[in-house]
Amino acid sequence: WLQDTFDVPLVIQMTDDEKFLWKDLTIEETNKLAHENAKDIIACGFDKDKTFIFSDVEYISESTEFYKMMCKIQKLVTFNQVKGIFGFTDSDSIGKISFPAIQATPSFSSAFPQIFNGKKDVPCLIPCAIDQDPYFRMTRDVAPRLGLLKPALLHSTFFPALQGAHGKMSASDPNSSIFLTDSDEQIKTKINKYAFSGGKPTEEEHRKYGGNCDIDVSYQYLTFFMEDDDKLADIKSRYSSGKMLTGELKQELTNVLQKLVGEHRERRLNVTDDIVNEYMKSRKLKFEY
Amino acid sequence: WLQDTFDVPLVIQMTDDEKFLWKDLTIEETNKLAHENAKDIIACGFDKDKTFIFSDVEYISESTEFYKMMCKIQKLVTFNQVKGIFGFTDSDSIGKISFPAIQATPSFSSAFPQIFNGKKDVPCLIPCAIDQDPYFRMTRDVAPRLGLLKPALLHSTFFPALQGAHGKMSASDPNSSIFLTDSDEQIKTKINKYAFSGGKPTEEEHRKYGGNCDIDVSYQYLTFFMEDDDKLADIKSRYSSGKMLTGELKQELTNVLQKLVGEHRERRLNVTDDIVNEYMKSRKLKFEY
Repeated sequence: WLQDTFDVPLVIQMTDDEKFLWKDLTIEETNKLAHENAKDIIACGFDKDKTFIFSDVEYISESTEFYKMMCKIQKLVTFNQVKGIFGFTDSDSIGKISFPAIQATPSFSSAFPQIFNGKKDVPCLIPCAIDQDPYFRMTRDVAPRLGLLKPALLHSTFFPALQGAHGKMSASDPNSSIFLTDSDEQIKTKINKYAFSGGKPTEEEHRKYGGNCDIDVSYQYLTFFMEDDDKLADIKSRYSSGKMLTGELKQELTNVLQKLVGEHRERRLNVTDDIVNEYMKSRKLKFEY
Repeated sequence: WLQDTFDVPLVIQMTDDEKFLWKDLTIEETNKLAHENAKDIIACGFDKDKTFIFSDVEYISESTEFYKMMCKIQKLVTFNQVKGIFGFTDSDSIGKISFPAIQATPSFSSAFPQIFNGKKDVPCLIPCAIDQDPYFRMTRDVAPRLGLLKPALLHSTFFPALQGAHGKMSASDPNSSIFLTDSDEQIKTKINKYAFSGGKPTEEEHRKYGGNCDIDVSYQYLTFFMEDDDKLADIKSRYSSGKMLTGELKQELTNVLQKLVGEHRERRLNVTDDIVNEYMKSRKLKFEY
């Protein structure tokens, strides 16, 4: 939506080096995962002429300007600072400790001379989940000391786990979330069995007191995925008043997600390795600077 | 001598990123200095077919294998370790803290697949001044954990400052050392005025008690630069016994250094930017692996 609305180039960083530093995976595995994840991103419908997806491992080792910018940031940030911001300790690896500079680097247009024609003052907007904010608070602190523009941020809220706000979505617990690879049947089962309900224990009580949308995960998910705001408001009103039952609400979500995931699955199937390579090739985008 | 004797490829790392992180210079300046320093190295007579000189800034940003190896080392070394080895504090930049991994990386042949044909088990010998040892103690600690060979080291002793063992050679004090760019006149003047003498205060005393080669800088320098060991032994014997005066000893060194620096100056003049680029181009060397 942002790309369509503002007609801007989009740069997406895949931090495969970070995943390697934090997880028990080889760097070859995390680099491969970056390409797999890129398929899901591409399937969301980003414009190939205006989108550059890059893996740190690949792009750092092909862009002198990116590496120079990394070094400039690493020179300006102390261990004290990253300790305060990220909670690193003396037992953390020097890779983790210096990584924040790598995540900060794409905030500056000079890291992508092929896209921004060498311009150093192209403003940058970073839409990200709020847990990524510390990296960019650090970046905003560093920017003026480099004589560069601070990046602007747009924070998205967290998506709740199926088990509710206190649950944790995790790739290792298949029931904690709907995956983009789930079948229609899996989606239906997961929602019916695991989506935390704000409904009352019995139909009688529910009809009388109504459900609680604030804690109902199916309703929460609809706020993300139902495009029709009027319909969403109607559902909220009917569920809260007890006119709509939990089963019906879950059915609404199942319909929406089966369609959305099904279409995504279809689009993802068409994303070949060649298409991924096109998005991930360092190149000029369809913008004049 | 090592290259000639063992007929081996030689890889020389120019740590322009390190100089940037430690000094008040821009990264563009330290990269330029790396090329200037490469001229002096090339003028020493290394074989172009067997020598790869690289700048960190340039090679990291063109070699995926080098960057991957950097990450692997950074993952295995903690802040605690570099604090113990290098004395870093919490106020040091994260660039300095993670730099030791960059200096360690060229110890492993997999960082240069174009030279070593992708082999990971080519033994590595690092001739260096003893102050660089901490980097390679760290490297030798990491190597077995990466399933790789430990590098072997050859430590050279420090070269004394003109003012003697307690003085400090410094690029900012032109009189602390003979530079490869010094003229014959400058060499003569520096040796006569500043080279610490182990001779006695008067000729009479000197003739009677002899000079002290252990503290005489001109003699020390000759141990590095006089190829003829018999002649050197003769000088030592004559100076120690008082037969040779300080002025004569200084004249010997002046002759040797004027010739050596003069020839170097000449060879360096012939090292064009194009020749530097040939040595610094990532390429296969004249060795089959």
